Amino acid sequence: MLTEDVQPFVKEGDTALSEHDRVWTLVPDILAIASHEGCFRRVNPAFSDILGWTEKEATRNSLQTLAHPEQEETLVGQLENLGRGLPMQGFELRLRHKAGGYRWISWSATHKGDCLYLVGRDVTWEKEAAAAKHSVQGALYQAQKMEALGQLAGRVSHDINNLLTSIVFGLDLLNRRLASGRVQELDQLIEVALTSAQRATDRTQQLLAFARKQPLDIRPVDVNQLISQLLPELEQSLGTQNRLSVDTMDGLWLASSDRLHLENTLIQLMTNAREAMPEGGCVTLSTGNVHLDAAATEGCIGLESGDYVQVTLKDNGIGMPQAVLERVFDPFFTTKPASGDVGLGLSMIYGFVRQVRGHVRIDSELGRGTLVRLYFPRCNGNEGAQ
Amino acid sequence: MLTEDVQPFVKEGDTALSEHDRVWTLVPDILAIASHEGCFRRVNPAFSDILGWTEKEATRNSLQTLAHPEQEETLVGQLENLGRGLPMQGFELRLRHKAGGYRWISWSATHKGDCLYLVGRDVTWEKEAAAAKHSVQGALYQAQKMEALGQLAGRVSHDINNLLTSIVFGLDLLNRRLASGRVQELDQLIEVALTSAQRATDRTQQLLAFARKQPLDIRPVDVNQLISQLLPELEQSLGTQNRLSVDTMDGLWLASSDRLHLENTLIQLMTNAREAMPEGGCVTLSTGNVHLDAAATEGCIGLESGDYVQVTLKDNGIGMPQAVLERVFDPFFTTKPASGDVGLGLSMIYGFVRQVRGHVRIDSELGRGTLVRLYFPRCNGNEGAQ
Repeated sequence: MLTEDVQPFVKEGDTALSEHDRVWTLVPDILAIASHEGCFRRVNPAFSDILGWTEKEATRNSLQTLAHPEQEETLVGQLENLGRGLPMQGFELRLRHKAGGYRWISWSATHKGDCLYLVGRDVTWEKEAAAAKHSVQGALYQAQKMEALGQLAGRVSHDINNLLTSIVFGLDLLNRRLASGRVQELDQLIEVALTSAQRATDRTQQLLAFARKQPLDIRPVDVNQLISQLLPELEQSLGTQNRLSVDTMDGLWLASSDRLHLENTLIQLMTNAREAMPEGGCVTLSTGNVHLDAAATEGCIGLESGDYVQVTLKDNGIGMPQAVLERVFDPFFTTKPASGDVGLGLSMIYGFVRQVRGHVRIDSELGRGTLVRLYFPRCNGNEGAQ
Repeated sequence: MLTEDVQPFVKEGDTALSEHDRVWTLVPDILAIASHEGCFRRVNPAFSDILGWTEKEATRNSLQTLAHPEQEETLVGQLENLGRGLPMQGFELRLRHKAGGYRWISWSATHKGDCLYLVGRDVTWEKEAAAAKHSVQGALYQAQKMEALGQLAGRVSHDINNLLTSIVFGLDLLNRRLASGRVQELDQLIEVALTSAQRATDRTQQLLAFARKQPLDIRPVDVNQLISQLLPELEQSLGTQNRLSVDTMDGLWLASSDRLHLENTLIQLMTNAREAMPEGGCVTLSTGNVHLDAAATEGCIGLESGDYVQVTLKDNGIGMPQAVLERVFDPFFTTKPASGDVGLGLSMIYGFVRQVRGHVRIDSELGRGTLVRLYFPRCNGNEGAQ
């Protein structure tokens, strides 16, 4: 507490001087001057508040002597950088508290003359809160994954179980009739069992599509040409109350895809857009060449960086909240009232696009509309386009 | 740059004074003195370095005039708190740069007399990096979820499809034989179809268990008694080369669970522990009463805070890496070489425990062993224990 007693000396500078003392004394962050080896020469009162050591004790110590043993090496590197004229920016170092234990201090510093000028902020609470938040976030994602898996397993097994029950029932009846020598109308029983088996097979086929295990015919596709040929059907799917605006890029690369599945995908997306625009609206369908670099493919498992043909559909409909957006590709997830056959649409599109080594991304904002981006690998082959 | 010209005046204080000036001038963080309304009276050179405004321009401004419009209200609240004597700790405020745009500054401050003493650190880069990391992390979790769903869908549909194919084949053959009037040995064909249908049903039953939709007999269970009765089977499952140590708690609450499924779960976990200890080892099986509060249940969808009976199994085996741990409950996930019927064990335990409104948690460390914790809701009913 130097300030109060110090008398002003230089007329011009006196306010400034006393103010700097006040800053030194009053700010809640550590201010310190140290040798270029990190030995403290002066520390402000906040140092004692935060770390428990008196100024006298501090000046018998250094960043090294107080640092957590695990961080000694990193600290040496940081001090060397400071010596080379690089500033230290928010370097987080655990320093020993006089009462035991460590505090996380985030340091900024510069080197001038033979001294370091340091500002240190106690970020212990923030570090602990961030670690806790990260762990809760991880647990929540894990729980959401298990929820999605449980719903898929429940839905599939329920549906198929019902169909198997009617197959077993039909076969049992067949058995009993044969045993009692009644061979009339057996073909009807067989027909019932066959129908159930066929429906069960249809179900598993849809799942195979999502699981990226459907038979595809992957060839070079001229997406612009495909769109122009498909235009009447796209407009029909979108409905007459909505406007479709097409914006295709000249010189579009050939895409590596399956023509039929791509057509179905576009029609399905138009139908979705129609449902998202109950009051009528506008969809823009556009194509373009894009390069996805390492940053763009980060977090997308199995997506390689490289050249892609991009197809985007943008509607100005009702949009989706974040919670829906996160589940939009889950099989059987739907926001529509419960009905028999919904919920595999977007999950099958996801499966198809990933199976051709492409990518699909949906952004949406409530009340603002939805943007779907499909990416298909650029085809460099010499085969003719489909 | 006041320092250099100022001559020492008070013998005792001179070094101190000039050092405080140097700190003010040289530190890379903002130091500032402001009125309690946030109008800047003095700012150090770092203010200009970070925000572009000269000291003169700064003193014509305030935290309010430079703050991002969205944060004005929060700022008012922070200044009021400061006025009431509460310190400002790492308050992140976007301030307008002279060249346009905003910088994120993290402020610490105290109020003394009619002034605020502030330290501000530019955390723009850290904020942007954290946001990018959060977004990549979210995308990665989402991708992992889709991977797990795809594998479940693929595995289920593949298995069931094969069985359906043989059902359809058998029924077709039946049909043709009947059409040509051959009614001998029809029962064998029916048997083949029935066997396939039964196997498909078994598959879907396992899935129902994971999906938490199996029929359970939920009653009060005395877990200590269950363990003591089950001891011979548990020891057998663990194998003679390993040691089982049981540590049950006196006064254990009754658990709400399904006795048979709980027994199967413990036996399965013993078998897992045996496989995790190829060189032999020791398993500790213990019970206890625990209260899970809101913090403990955070991130666990559907788990309510309250009283639980805890059953823990601790082995000192080979442990699991983090990547395996994250997938250990996924249906069909296994680390064993491909074989026909593995992979539903832990996923079924997960389904069972969640279905009785309990929780299961696995922690593991490579080379150190695995800790499985099962939580069953405390039963407060008056019905007799099973």
